Amino acid sequence: MGFSLRGMMRPSVLVEISGGSTLVVLRSKSARLSLRPSLSLSLSSYTAAAAAAGRGSGEVRWTVIGGWTAPATGQGLAPRVPFPIRFKSVSASSALRQGMTEHNDSGIEQIQLLDGFQDSYGGVTVEMKEHMDADVFAPLLRASISSWKQRGKQGVWIKLPIEYSHLVDIIVQEGFRYHHAEPNYLMLVRWLAETLDTLPMNASHRVGVGAFVLNDKREVLVVQEHSGWFQGKGVWKLPTGVVNEGEDICDAVVREVKEETGVDTKFVEVLCFRQSHKSFFTKSDLLFLCVLQPESSAIDKQNVEIEAAQWMPIEEYAKQPFVVNNKQFNFMANICLVKANHGYPGLSARATTSGGGKRNYIYCNKPEVVENFASLM
Amino acid sequence: MGFSLRGMMRPSVLVEISGGSTLVVLRSKSARLSLRPSLSLSLSSYTAAAAAAGRGSGEVRWTVIGGWTAPATGQGLAPRVPFPIRFKSVSASSALRQGMTEHNDSGIEQIQLLDGFQDSYGGVTVEMKEHMDADVFAPLLRASISSWKQRGKQGVWIKLPIEYSHLVDIIVQEGFRYHHAEPNYLMLVRWLAETLDTLPMNASHRVGVGAFVLNDKREVLVVQEHSGWFQGKGVWKLPTGVVNEGEDICDAVVREVKEETGVDTKFVEVLCFRQSHKSFFTKSDLLFLCVLQPESSAIDKQNVEIEAAQWMPIEEYAKQPFVVNNKQFNFMANICLVKANHGYPGLSARATTSGGGKRNYIYCNKPEVVENFASLM
Repeated sequence: MGFSLRGMMRPSVLVEISGGSTLVVLRSKSARLSLRPSLSLSLSSYTAAAAAAGRGSGEVRWTVIGGWTAPATGQGLAPRVPFPIRFKSVSASSALRQGMTEHNDSGIEQIQLLDGFQDSYGGVTVEMKEHMDADVFAPLLRASISSWKQRGKQGVWIKLPIEYSHLVDIIVQEGFRYHHAEPNYLMLVRWLAETLDTLPMNASHRVGVGAFVLNDKREVLVVQEHSGWFQGKGVWKLPTGVVNEGEDICDAVVREVKEETGVDTKFVEVLCFRQSHKSFFTKSDLLFLCVLQPESSAIDKQNVEIEAAQWMPIEEYAKQPFVVNNKQFNFMANICLVKANHGYPGLSARATTSGGGKRNYIYCNKPEVVENFASLM
Repeated sequence: MGFSLRGMMRPSVLVEISGGSTLVVLRSKSARLSLRPSLSLSLSSYTAAAAAAGRGSGEVRWTVIGGWTAPATGQGLAPRVPFPIRFKSVSASSALRQGMTEHNDSGIEQIQLLDGFQDSYGGVTVEMKEHMDADVFAPLLRASISSWKQRGKQGVWIKLPIEYSHLVDIIVQEGFRYHHAEPNYLMLVRWLAETLDTLPMNASHRVGVGAFVLNDKREVLVVQEHSGWFQGKGVWKLPTGVVNEGEDICDAVVREVKEETGVDTKFVEVLCFRQSHKSFFTKSDLLFLCVLQPESSAIDKQNVEIEAAQWMPIEEYAKQPFVVNNKQFNFMANICLVKANHGYPGLSARATTSGGGKRNYIYCNKPEVVENFASLM
């Protein structure tokens, strides 16, 4: 009934009916699609798709959006007998458990859609949480993209755990690009709208900390490094490290000093910071030089990264030829000297909360003045 | 000659000879490997691999490291006739052009290795630059990993352009994890050594800027946003934006003000900064609040993100209920008020250069004092 059948089609074909807003996805082992110039679609044993447009008869335009055939558009005769179409979005995992398809009373198989949650910017995010074979996933993704487009979604995000790396290529072939990756997952994105792509950028900076720990004998805590750029150069440098994911700068610098030298310290303030570019592939780097108050003096150095650690007179540290001849090191050493010898207004850390209730730190000068300012007005 | 042949083997098999440091990789459509308890390897038409160990006869131990069969180890008789083995590392692209294999005088096919460049931390990086079929790439990768292990390499990095997404799954199956991704490539890593994995982390922070632009009538430049969290709330806020890849904070904030409001400004200093976590997937956020000196006053707002822009008396801005009731906004507004009404020591930007000669900025207080400090010593 309805369309007549010609040519050859892969088992899984998705048909989108443009006569209405409803997406109809058919999957039929007996269906065939001819790829001749005058395309015709037929579903031999089904009262087919066009009823989805809400019209009992007449012509509808249709587009083949899925399967492994090339996308194509065309027209066909509407079926003579309308039937109910169920349109249901389910999670990938439940679709899998249900065998991907549902049979309704008319014998139609409907491929279901990937389930995504919405963001406040008009986008949708899909998190793949269970294994799915590539040949099951591919038509599901195509049907879902079509549905999201119809529903006016702009950006689509797919979070794909590394266990499902066999699906990366399929997603890329559907027009997605990489957004970011963490060790255990890859995030892929596609902008669906006709408007300018406003998907936010990935993280662009690594954040490091340097520790200026001065004791009451005007000695500064310094280390020599085993590997990397400073290896074998004999340069005594301030302990430095990378801020961990989710870690506050004021905590990271205390942790790094303890790890590298065994010395306990208390965060006092940020003296200055340096931004540099292309320090790690295409990424930038922010280094915060912090003043720490020592709370112990015995050195118990870590062996993996640190060759040596000691307390050293601050002038001796600042006069090392490498420090004097490297503009950046020299500048930072001078800041330390100014701090040790004069007043230098550093940035203290003050805990605040965001609108969403998350605790965070603001680093600023004169925090007491700032905190009391409202009452001065 | 040499080994005798039994059982069944996939076309591509890699054999590593442990008798010497040389890696020999054989590829033979006629070779067969039996997977019985007493493994034996034979290469019917080749004078086989063991000569690579530098011994003309006798027994050698061997390990099947590649092909799609399970890894296996065993022993075999050395070939009676030694022959020269060529061991050559070539780039993936030239290997491809050469059809991946070389035939030597003895009819041996040698699969060549992926070419990588070395880093100063004992690692090797491979950049895939031309298309390679998955079934060509897989044994090449396995052979290369074996070679890198023998040569004591610790970390292996593979930079894979998105065009070659068909190779992602193969690389993951070889024990690699994702390190990071940019829109057009994916970086995968694997730690080869027995020691602790010391591969550096990916970028962890996005960096934003907020602009405090005050004119000589004590009016602050403020905007209302079209979309996102502030949509429809009627809140007047300072212009904010994200620092682009490779962009200096002092440039980014001037650009954002110009883009959003059309107002020309000059960077003066950083007033404070805020670090927050889990602001973008697992990533953190650093926002730098900067003082800008206006150099024009006419507003020509951008329409995509900005609903409205105006100059507003600073006290009126600070007294908005949203600002007063949000701890973080209130704190930052108070810093702006302190700056406007009292002395507040901000961080100026000073250009320096790194040891490698890259220009970068250090943001600090009293830069003149710091710059002149050496001469004061």
